[in-house]
Amino acid sequence: MKVNGIPYRTIWRSKSGKSVTILDQTMFPHAFETRELSSVTEAAEAIRTMRVRGAPLIGATAAYGMWLAMQADPGDASLDGASSMLVDTRPTAVNLAWAVDISRRSLIHLAPELRAEKALQVAERICDEDVATNMAIGLHGLDLIKTALARKSFGEPVNILTHCNAGWLACVDWGTALAPIYMAHDEGIAVHVWVDETRPRNQGASLSAFELGAHGVPHTILPDNAGGHLMQHGEVDMCIVGTDRTTATGDVANKIGTYLKALAADANGVPFYVALPHTTIDWDLSDGVREIEIEQRSPREVTHMTGRTETGEIVTVEIAAPGSPAANYGFDVTPARYVTGLITERGVAPASREGLLALYPERR
Amino acid sequence: MKVNGIPYRTIWRSKSGKSVTILDQTMFPHAFETRELSSVTEAAEAIRTMRVRGAPLIGATAAYGMWLAMQADPGDASLDGASSMLVDTRPTAVNLAWAVDISRRSLIHLAPELRAEKALQVAERICDEDVATNMAIGLHGLDLIKTALARKSFGEPVNILTHCNAGWLACVDWGTALAPIYMAHDEGIAVHVWVDETRPRNQGASLSAFELGAHGVPHTILPDNAGGHLMQHGEVDMCIVGTDRTTATGDVANKIGTYLKALAADANGVPFYVALPHTTIDWDLSDGVREIEIEQRSPREVTHMTGRTETGEIVTVEIAAPGSPAANYGFDVTPARYVTGLITERGVAPASREGLLALYPERR
Repeated sequence: MKVNGIPYRTIWRSKSGKSVTILDQTMFPHAFETRELSSVTEAAEAIRTMRVRGAPLIGATAAYGMWLAMQADPGDASLDGASSMLVDTRPTAVNLAWAVDISRRSLIHLAPELRAEKALQVAERICDEDVATNMAIGLHGLDLIKTALARKSFGEPVNILTHCNAGWLACVDWGTALAPIYMAHDEGIAVHVWVDETRPRNQGASLSAFELGAHGVPHTILPDNAGGHLMQHGEVDMCIVGTDRTTATGDVANKIGTYLKALAADANGVPFYVALPHTTIDWDLSDGVREIEIEQRSPREVTHMTGRTETGEIVTVEIAAPGSPAANYGFDVTPARYVTGLITERGVAPASREGLLALYPERR
Repeated sequence: MKVNGIPYRTIWRSKSGKSVTILDQTMFPHAFETRELSSVTEAAEAIRTMRVRGAPLIGATAAYGMWLAMQADPGDASLDGASSMLVDTRPTAVNLAWAVDISRRSLIHLAPELRAEKALQVAERICDEDVATNMAIGLHGLDLIKTALARKSFGEPVNILTHCNAGWLACVDWGTALAPIYMAHDEGIAVHVWVDETRPRNQGASLSAFELGAHGVPHTILPDNAGGHLMQHGEVDMCIVGTDRTTATGDVANKIGTYLKALAADANGVPFYVALPHTTIDWDLSDGVREIEIEQRSPREVTHMTGRTETGEIVTVEIAAPGSPAANYGFDVTPARYVTGLITERGVAPASREGLLALYPERR
């Protein structure tokens, strides 16, 4: 997507051809900086300190990290060392272990002198596949936006509400929930995005708003409290959100607060779509509310807030009553009955076991 | 209510007997300070700069302001001057004009030498009536908490979710939505309050959490996004919120986000109560969603946040992506069908025209 008119991915091979460049996301949205990673140690550090974040992007960075390791030393010890160093950075990220494993298995039986080139091929294939998946999600979602457009008066934008950040900054390009929106905008369809700020970490106000603004998509940041009111007054034509985990029955676990928006959409007849690559589907789960454990995070994310002062300094302030405890649930589960459709790379499915199996018959 | 073990109202006659003391709410929750008002000019300044806020408290402060004016100069010119100075501080606050009008009408036909004493009587009556109204609301709400308690296992607290601040800091004492909670706590009933932080102005995390903490009521601050998840998992026994305006049919306009919690309560079988003095009922309205205009406030309340640094400095920081627009709707309307009951000073009414008329038959 574009930033200041220049198309970017979140990660790419540097011009030198020997290193990899990322957008350093630690200071988003307060600063926009690229950073060159020249060694596997630097790649691991970038993942651990969240200079890169979002499951697909972490996987891509790890795959490039394997390439950096093989350039420095293509031996077996280096291969094993790089694998464990990368996997250890964020042990719970599924895509990380998956990408390192693919790379390692492609390299281990090769002669050392062939490994660097192969590692680069693997990393670039992982990136390209992520882009292709998100483009397919975007194209299927675009059809839904066109359907919404057909119901609007001439010249009125399609108003789409989103929660959290399921955009290109979490992926290599396009994003999931935001991909259809970028495609609509690029086709000249008038879209306007209501961006939930998404407390407590504010990924909407910081990341989604940054992305959309940089690419030129009209948008407005909202407190998370406002979406119900807007839907009640016909100001939202559709909702599109992402998901971190999807049951085989179509329940979706996404950022805390998603469920409240789904309830409001249901109460007001607003279509509520969830965009996902098939990798988020957990085919072993059938009841999201009972079976998906919800991560509890530090209360400090609720009681403190980081931002920039008028002089550009980055400062953290305490915003709550001193001494009051706070709770911080990371996700909630939206039952399938509130989901109008699941936008996957293979098409749009009803949020049900039958709906998903029709798109993924190999899972029958 | 108590702060550090000492019972407080939000406003009282100073020990000197000649001035009035308030809690200076401008720095809440970062500092707790009292402030003496010795002249009508100081009373007007306190209202204008929101050292006092909340409709009932503004009215009480204005009535005390009239007393301060009459002590300094009980003549007709002083009476008129004080009236207009006070009314002009915040022209839209209904209770302000109402309190000044009551005071002025009680004084205008009296000999000047009798006016100061009478003005004091009026101010104290306004305060005492506010306290009595809130105590009555509290007692009726207490019965509902006792009903919820009867359904809990022995020793388990009644979990009550509230939104925004409808507590004693907005009134003279007790509050509306929080009055039943204080009464239950004072009676030894185990209650625990889920306090929505209530973005963008965070009156929950700052004012409600401060109040509850200072009085010793167990509570936990939540991002506004979390309530649906908690209700889905049986962690909320009832909701109690306030209202700024109530239609004759029982629709309630309250702080933005109230509607989303009402939807979640409805979806999960959680009782949703609204506490109100009859003065918030607008008997001319019958459709809150269509008829109540929703105030739009400064986007800066969404994009900026004020808090204290580790060194105790009060600092405002920008938290959103630079240049992204934001919308800030002050209130939303919860249709009567989602309201389990209206807790008034005369009892608990179904949220309907018939329900309200049964309690207020003089309105038939």
